[in-house]
Amino acid sequence: MCLAETMRTAPHRHNVGELHAHDEKVDVDRRAFLRGGAVAAAGAAFTVVGPAAPAVAAGGRRRKGHRGVIDLTHRFTTEFPTFTNLPATREPLETYEEDGYYTQFWTFGEHTATHMDAPGHFAPGQPLVDELDPDSLVGPLVVIDISRKAQRNPNATVTVDDLRRYERRHGRIPRKSLVCMDSGWADKVNDPLAFKGGAEFPDYNFPGFGIDAAMWLAERRDVIGIGVDTISLDPGNSETFPVHVEYLATGRYGIEGVANLGAAKHRRALAVVGVVPWQDGSGGPCRLIAL
Amino acid sequence: MCLAETMRTAPHRHNVGELHAHDEKVDVDRRAFLRGGAVAAAGAAFTVVGPAAPAVAAGGRRRKGHRGVIDLTHRFTTEFPTFTNLPATREPLETYEEDGYYTQFWTFGEHTATHMDAPGHFAPGQPLVDELDPDSLVGPLVVIDISRKAQRNPNATVTVDDLRRYERRHGRIPRKSLVCMDSGWADKVNDPLAFKGGAEFPDYNFPGFGIDAAMWLAERRDVIGIGVDTISLDPGNSETFPVHVEYLATGRYGIEGVANLGAAKHRRALAVVGVVPWQDGSGGPCRLIAL
Repeated sequence: MCLAETMRTAPHRHNVGELHAHDEKVDVDRRAFLRGGAVAAAGAAFTVVGPAAPAVAAGGRRRKGHRGVIDLTHRFTTEFPTFTNLPATREPLETYEEDGYYTQFWTFGEHTATHMDAPGHFAPGQPLVDELDPDSLVGPLVVIDISRKAQRNPNATVTVDDLRRYERRHGRIPRKSLVCMDSGWADKVNDPLAFKGGAEFPDYNFPGFGIDAAMWLAERRDVIGIGVDTISLDPGNSETFPVHVEYLATGRYGIEGVANLGAAKHRRALAVVGVVPWQDGSGGPCRLIAL
Repeated sequence: MCLAETMRTAPHRHNVGELHAHDEKVDVDRRAFLRGGAVAAAGAAFTVVGPAAPAVAAGGRRRKGHRGVIDLTHRFTTEFPTFTNLPATREPLETYEEDGYYTQFWTFGEHTATHMDAPGHFAPGQPLVDELDPDSLVGPLVVIDISRKAQRNPNATVTVDDLRRYERRHGRIPRKSLVCMDSGWADKVNDPLAFKGGAEFPDYNFPGFGIDAAMWLAERRDVIGIGVDTISLDPGNSETFPVHVEYLATGRYGIEGVANLGAAKHRRALAVVGVVPWQDGSGGPCRLIAL
């Protein structure tokens, strides 16, 4: 289908402002709109978070997400390191020159880039990604920082002690939270060997959840899910994948390849797991956003 | 890679409750957690919306998203009708039997199922999906119902008059909103011929945005995006695609194939556009959620 000819006949009548022309009036309008309805608080969720966020990053550059939206997602690229070393591919499907518009054609395995492991990924009969209750995609975000011990031991795990220490400092982890491990590994994502700590399974080395901690979160705190900034819920040196086998069998999901958790730490944000409802999906690419 | 052997050695030590064992205590916990921080309102956004939502659908069945999360996304299936008739494909990549776990391999064009048209889809130089500011993915949801006139005319459009009528009844459309057309077409999605009103371009017939209304929303209301419950931002009988050409060139995006807008109508919800940040994407599959 070539639309180039028809498009050239379309008039260009308008001159409009820029997309990102943010000013204070934006928030005022949003607040006014939302104040009027039953969900006045929804507006506040979006605007109140803003001021607490750093408007300018350390280097003086304006941060993305500075106004209350924190993006916890890596770009979905053909270079993204995957557990099985299967890369995503893309090619132009339609082009500006030949078709008048631009699109791409993609191929990939479901477990690429920032993505969900659905409960049914390892456990037959557990929910697949398109069977999850939408309510389970939204909940308080809790970030467990194990970056210090991960610097010493690349196969460091989140332990029950880590979770109890978090609770002593920050209060009880609420039910229906998304609890994410921040090991510092997200910074290594552009260097596959460093990110995975080895060329292929079973030579990997990276941090993950200990099975006792994962089950504690499922049983004692009834979390909606757990997340890691590495390539797998289990640490890299695991050969039995107990978190995949036992934790996912509780009907809960995991998110792998979470980005930018440092920006969300101690923010008491609300996580929204924007996973595409892939048909019979064992999981799949998602947009993870914190408000 | 076969993990089946190693997995069989993993112990199954735990018995835990169900994923969807919702009870009132959940909300109490969530509120308590969120009350403690700067974003107390974020908790309220999630819990306050709940009571206003219908807990039971017309047929007496429990609605998904009844507790405050409204899913506006169709399942991403190989049968989903596409504008160019290019279907998505999927095949098993790993299986429980042979590999000890289950995954799928996907192929598709970016404009399949509920998906974004990025500003750069038609306009070279405008932002692609991985270049959008995360702030532009969150905003008040506004639903414009044109289902009555769409029943009489399948190529009915959202007009400036429709937008002004909405504002007289519901108040001014706030800046940075996502404004979606509800034409009733989402119900036809399982019948491709009915959904598209024809077998292939240029024989389509379905509702869409009029160019004047789309530009009014961009210029006068500074929306973050527009959405349609049909397969294209422009109506089916358009051959010049002015909304794709002119509106997208303002640096704003569109969402096509939005689902379930009836559940969000007049709810003053917050829309979260969970679009995967596809590398150089002209758009692509997303999870659209309203809180």
